[in-house]
Amino acid sequence: MYEKTKQRVYESNIALAEKNLVILTWGNVSELTPDGKAFVIKPSGVSYDELSPEKMVIVNLDGHVIESDYRPSSDTETHRILYQSFDKIGGIVHTHSLYATSFAQARVEIPCLGTTHADHFIGNVPLTRALSKQEIEEGYEVNTGRVIVERMTQIDPEAIPAVLVAGHAPFVWGENSKKAVTNAVALEAIAQMALQTKQLTGQLGPVLESYVLQKHYTRKHGKNAYYGQ
Amino acid sequence: MYEKTKQRVYESNIALAEKNLVILTWGNVSELTPDGKAFVIKPSGVSYDELSPEKMVIVNLDGHVIESDYRPSSDTETHRILYQSFDKIGGIVHTHSLYATSFAQARVEIPCLGTTHADHFIGNVPLTRALSKQEIEEGYEVNTGRVIVERMTQIDPEAIPAVLVAGHAPFVWGENSKKAVTNAVALEAIAQMALQTKQLTGQLGPVLESYVLQKHYTRKHGKNAYYGQ
Amino acid sequence: MYEKTKQRVYESNIALAEKNLVILTWGNVSELTPDGKAFVIKPSGVSYDELSPEKMVIVNLDGHVIESDYRPSSDTETHRILYQSFDKIGGIVHTHSLYATSFAQARVEIPCLGTTHADHFIGNVPLTRALSKQEIEEGYEVNTGRVIVERMTQIDPEAIPAVLVAGHAPFVWGENSKKAVTNAVALEAIAQMALQTKQLTGQLGPVLESYVLQKHYTRKHGKNAYYGQ
Amino acid sequence: MYEKTKQRVYESNIALAEKNLVILTWGNVSELTPDGKAFVIKPSGVSYDELSPEKMVIVNLDGHVIESDYRPSSDTETHRILYQSFDKIGGIVHTHSLYATSFAQARVEIPCLGTTHADHFIGNVPLTRALSKQEIEEGYEVNTGRVIVERMTQIDPEAIPAVLVAGHAPFVWGENSKKAVTNAVALEAIAQMALQTKQLTGQLGPVLESYVLQKHYTRKHGKNAYYGQ
Repeated sequence: MYEKTKQRVYESNIALAEKNLVILTWGNVSELTPDGKAFVIKPSGVSYDELSPEKMVIVNLDGHVIESDYRPSSDTETHRILYQSFDKIGGIVHTHSLYATSFAQARVEIPCLGTTHADHFIGNVPLTRALSKQEIEEGYEVNTGRVIVERMTQIDPEAIPAVLVAGHAPFVWGENSKKAVTNAVALEAIAQMALQTKQLTGQLGPVLESYVLQKHYTRKHGKNAYYGQ
Repeated sequence: MYEKTKQRVYESNIALAEKNLVILTWGNVSELTPDGKAFVIKPSGVSYDELSPEKMVIVNLDGHVIESDYRPSSDTETHRILYQSFDKIGGIVHTHSLYATSFAQARVEIPCLGTTHADHFIGNVPLTRALSKQEIEEGYEVNTGRVIVERMTQIDPEAIPAVLVAGHAPFVWGENSKKAVTNAVALEAIAQMALQTKQLTGQLGPVLESYVLQKHYTRKHGKNAYYGQ
Repeated sequence: MYEKTKQRVYESNIALAEKNLVILTWGNVSELTPDGKAFVIKPSGVSYDELSPEKMVIVNLDGHVIESDYRPSSDTETHRILYQSFDKIGGIVHTHSLYATSFAQARVEIPCLGTTHADHFIGNVPLTRALSKQEIEEGYEVNTGRVIVERMTQIDPEAIPAVLVAGHAPFVWGENSKKAVTNAVALEAIAQMALQTKQLTGQLGPVLESYVLQKHYTRKHGKNAYYGQ
Repeated sequence: MYEKTKQRVYESNIALAEKNLVILTWGNVSELTPDGKAFVIKPSGVSYDELSPEKMVIVNLDGHVIESDYRPSSDTETHRILYQSFDKIGGIVHTHSLYATSFAQARVEIPCLGTTHADHFIGNVPLTRALSKQEIEEGYEVNTGRVIVERMTQIDPEAIPAVLVAGHAPFVWGENSKKAVTNAVALEAIAQMALQTKQLTGQLGPVLESYVLQKHYTRKHGKNAYYGQ
């Protein structure tokens, strides 16, 4: 059942590790099944060199595990809320990559300082508010998903496919898990460059001209895109 | 004698090098034997590509080397004091990893700035005081162990499995050598992220909300843990 | 047609990736053909592990693609303007390498702070002005080439073989694509060292004495060079 | 002639590259021959993947090349002056490693901030003065050697086996080329940690207590050393 999706999610988890975005077991990738009824996700706490496609866990959109010997990632409920809330996404990545996580810890959004950023995110990478004590007690992971959705109100998740959870780390998505991994790679690079830009100018700026941002984003995305084959 | 422990300590030393926590021969790993009467440790100054399980040195808890052709790590006395003082630890790692050592040199504790930290250390990674001239003359390595133990008074070494020795470098531990290596990897990552957070905010902050810290730590540790398989 | 140049451009693109100057598909290399009538360039958006010499695209100096199944790099027009304008260059590299791009984002030129810089660039690595909205609408890539040429007025492109496009990233060149890759490697290293020098001194300085700059540059370049075989 | 020394110098040059201390061809290693009459050095500008033991160049202490098809490193005269001036050194390394070179560019000595430094250098890593215009015109490389020797007056080159040439990069030495490479690795690590310590404390400090410095150095060096086998 869903063997191809399991294979894809396995490969995307491995790709995440190969891109040096994962330390120890701090990261996970999921992908929606083709019928949109469930998603496949990394098993919890299993090290990357012990992963195999069969160990991937299927979870339906109500949060129930379907036929698996493993427990799903402890972040599964966060993934689930995002799939329920964002219509057009098909893959999600969570990492504690070193630069993006530093912005999440600093509780600072990543402004668009250059075309590298504009190629992937059409504006600031947003930051959630902190969860309240009550939200954490009632359901930490599900409420992490909810504060992400709250923050993305009036933001198109296709055009800004990443968010920083305050004090925690990034969640990144895309039309499938492979695209989500690509966006996570881009996020880490722009976070490093934003920090270094600040070290040169003394501020998180200057911000890229909005017309350059629009140009670069639409060069790669949408019906007038002309990047790629 | 203690062949399995020798094999494990060998593997943990190699893992430490593979995780890029060791430069030249600046690092060593030890593990308590199953009977709790001795520990096995890396030989002094032997390069990591010349290590083998047979070269590991057995030292009893009185500090005497048992049947070995090699001299144990020059830091052996520090390891010994920690095994004597901390009941529940079974493995110790010492490194000069670049970010954690920078905090030790700066003589600055690492506050908990995010969930990555909270997953491994339930509060500040503490800093020892400097040794006095007399302490160094009387027994540098044994007194290094003692200032660590002094600093850990009223701190649970299971819940905070690392310390920064002022002007020197970190010592890290765990229930066995493999877990100690994992904690050393985590320490280096949180040290790098703490420095980068400071570069963004101008201070070693903001500190993570205490209720988030508790939640993340207990998600991975203790009887209500639900992370992993 | 131009098989040898295709092979060379393929190898230079691979070298660029191996030198860790490329993230995802953010980079491209081109080289002028021996007859000077066209240049060979990486296809747009093709990942580095799927490249082959046959996929390289030939473009003539009027901007028309010659016999190819692939679309050329989206930055092709920028390369073309540079080949038209700078007589003596035979290869061009574009990257979003992390340190050089941070300077482009910060909109700060890289002054010559040491002999490493002087060995490759006889003075500041210059920064272009930002493109206007009109220039972007009329032809983003061609006008990127034009602001580079504008900035290089009164600068010898052989003696300063790199430029930072404001808010974007570097373009680097050389007598052929291999030399351009070498200059891109040098640029990234001097950018990192310039940032670190600033972190030590609080400024992008001190600047290297001009007579040392001249000495180091002429040691490696020109008729009195005595570096190499 | 001197085949064994050629082999050793070849291996040390390769080790330097494997330790990531060399970018492009920016680095070279030499070693004194057993009879003390000459030294063997890397050929100028030859890339590290094209090196072989036979390509190493023999130069006598008067500066004349002995039987070689290659020109020696352009820094040969600097090496020669150091061999002539420092009695007890047998190997020399020159690199443009990224952190140590940043200190050379900043023209800031590296103070001893921790035991990692103390294990290899018994005090500040010193900085030369800049060469005058006349010194550069009269003999750049030979005078580079001379300003190093001038700076090392009243410093024991065995106890401080490295120097930063202002605006240029480090020279490092040891009793043979392998030890010199080890010292170059140590220098780069302590330079990175010194910069990071400054980023935490706002200054290049605090400096390590002098009695700890002495203890750590003598633990590894001299007749009372007890580190290693």
